[in-house]
Amino acid sequence: MFHTIALFGTGLIGGSFALALRRRHPATRMVGFDRDLDAARRALELGVIDTIAADAAEAVRDADLVFLAVPVAQVPSLLGGIVDGLRDDALITDAGSTKGDVVAAARAKLGPRIERFVPGHPIAGREVHGPDAALATLYDGRAVILTPLAENAPQAIARVQALWADCGARVTTMPVAQHDRVLAAVSHLPHMLSYALVAQIVDSADAALKLGLAGAGFRDFTRIAASSPEMWRDVALANREALLAELDDYIALVAGLRASIAGSDGEALEALFDKASRARSAWKPAGPDVSA
Amino acid sequence: MFHTIALFGTGLIGGSFALALRRRHPATRMVGFDRDLDAARRALELGVIDTIAADAAEAVRDADLVFLAVPVAQVPSLLGGIVDGLRDDALITDAGSTKGDVVAAARAKLGPRIERFVPGHPIAGREVHGPDAALATLYDGRAVILTPLAENAPQAIARVQALWADCGARVTTMPVAQHDRVLAAVSHLPHMLSYALVAQIVDSADAALKLGLAGAGFRDFTRIAASSPEMWRDVALANREALLAELDDYIALVAGLRASIAGSDGEALEALFDKASRARSAWKPAGPDVSA
Repeated sequence: MFHTIALFGTGLIGGSFALALRRRHPATRMVGFDRDLDAARRALELGVIDTIAADAAEAVRDADLVFLAVPVAQVPSLLGGIVDGLRDDALITDAGSTKGDVVAAARAKLGPRIERFVPGHPIAGREVHGPDAALATLYDGRAVILTPLAENAPQAIARVQALWADCGARVTTMPVAQHDRVLAAVSHLPHMLSYALVAQIVDSADAALKLGLAGAGFRDFTRIAASSPEMWRDVALANREALLAELDDYIALVAGLRASIAGSDGEALEALFDKASRARSAWKPAGPDVSA
Repeated sequence: MFHTIALFGTGLIGGSFALALRRRHPATRMVGFDRDLDAARRALELGVIDTIAADAAEAVRDADLVFLAVPVAQVPSLLGGIVDGLRDDALITDAGSTKGDVVAAARAKLGPRIERFVPGHPIAGREVHGPDAALATLYDGRAVILTPLAENAPQAIARVQALWADCGARVTTMPVAQHDRVLAAVSHLPHMLSYALVAQIVDSADAALKLGLAGAGFRDFTRIAASSPEMWRDVALANREALLAELDDYIALVAGLRASIAGSDGEALEALFDKASRARSAWKPAGPDVSA
């Protein structure tokens, strides 16, 4: 296992990683760094980290693992700030929701050290943020996708796989581009659509009345619209190409649905709804429910 | 209170109504009728109803209240089948998700008896159906919207209001057209969008992989895509005009979002997400959580 982990980002994702790993490896030293010093202090209070680094370079000085749990847009400058201070044997991995942009930044900033960067993405989250939202169980039974690079040694990939397995996760690997297409469809697109629905209601006549009468369907459909605007702005821009392709397909599908309604084509509507209803009823989520 | 209630539809909505009312009025006789005889038999076994009527005319013979909890597309033929058998003092109300079409059907079928029809819509539901899904607590703290007609006597409206208050609900009144606009925005549109997202994923490359990696965001966004295709076909057609207006606004909004992503306009994206996130974080659902 790793002796010292430099944890960049001490909130929900990074903090849960630290807490999950401590269950199996209580002796691992967690050195935290966060652009929000109050968050880092709170993480220290909660026992999520063992110490707060004064700056990014200090955070990595003794680290044999560097874990990046920061918004993806901050990855380039962060890597630029630590590359010269990394130990020769340090592995680097991340938890970013998009992989194409992170890998491009890593290639640009890490140079030959790219061989020690194994990109990752845990499929887990909550709508609450910060160290207080961190849970040791967040990754139990959840999928973690690694998108290993051609430059990675099998040994480096295996160590990051074992790291996530020790956090309770199911580890899957796939190419970077496939990751970004899959996540655009099942995660990034629904976030855009949920934000858009709430914005439409807020800006409409009768907004207060509508929100007062909205029921359980609205509640669940829009739960993800409470997510971090900054994070999702970054995700939308970072995964632009795949997300635009999904959005175009979706706009076309909804235009067809609109035509079916306008034309009173009940058969087409029921066929579409039935297909979706069967698939959704058969679907089972992985892992425990920690969304609340 | 009412002595005998003719309950058309013995599933989730009608059955929960009967169970909720029995808490306050155990002596009220519930005469059930359902196009699905197995459902009616199960409702009888569960004590939701006291007896099964042989046909619609028999169901209303002794009823001083007629409660319609059937898909809205079935309301016209149902009213046509009972109008001649109604007691002179019988009140009629319904639980349909759309009101313009139900009121038009009632005007066409009930003639002068329209004065005794007080349209209603409880904002409550679950993704499970049938008498076994019925809950005495389904309407506790939930909104019920009545859309009284100009022909209704104040006394008739008051009795239907009291009926729902006895079921634990908060009763609101508004005009028919406003109801249909509000529900199109907060309920009917999200159902269309949720069905469409699942259909898009099911029909895409990597569908199985995508569904296997979908997380909590997908789970909640698509919970309503497991809803009854027949019911939602009927709702989409019954509330066509209001739903088309909402769909057009939504398509325009998503096209704008797409343009912001294509143009890398992070500021516009963050402003939209921030508006939605603040509104959704401030929103509180009414009533207990019975969706699971």
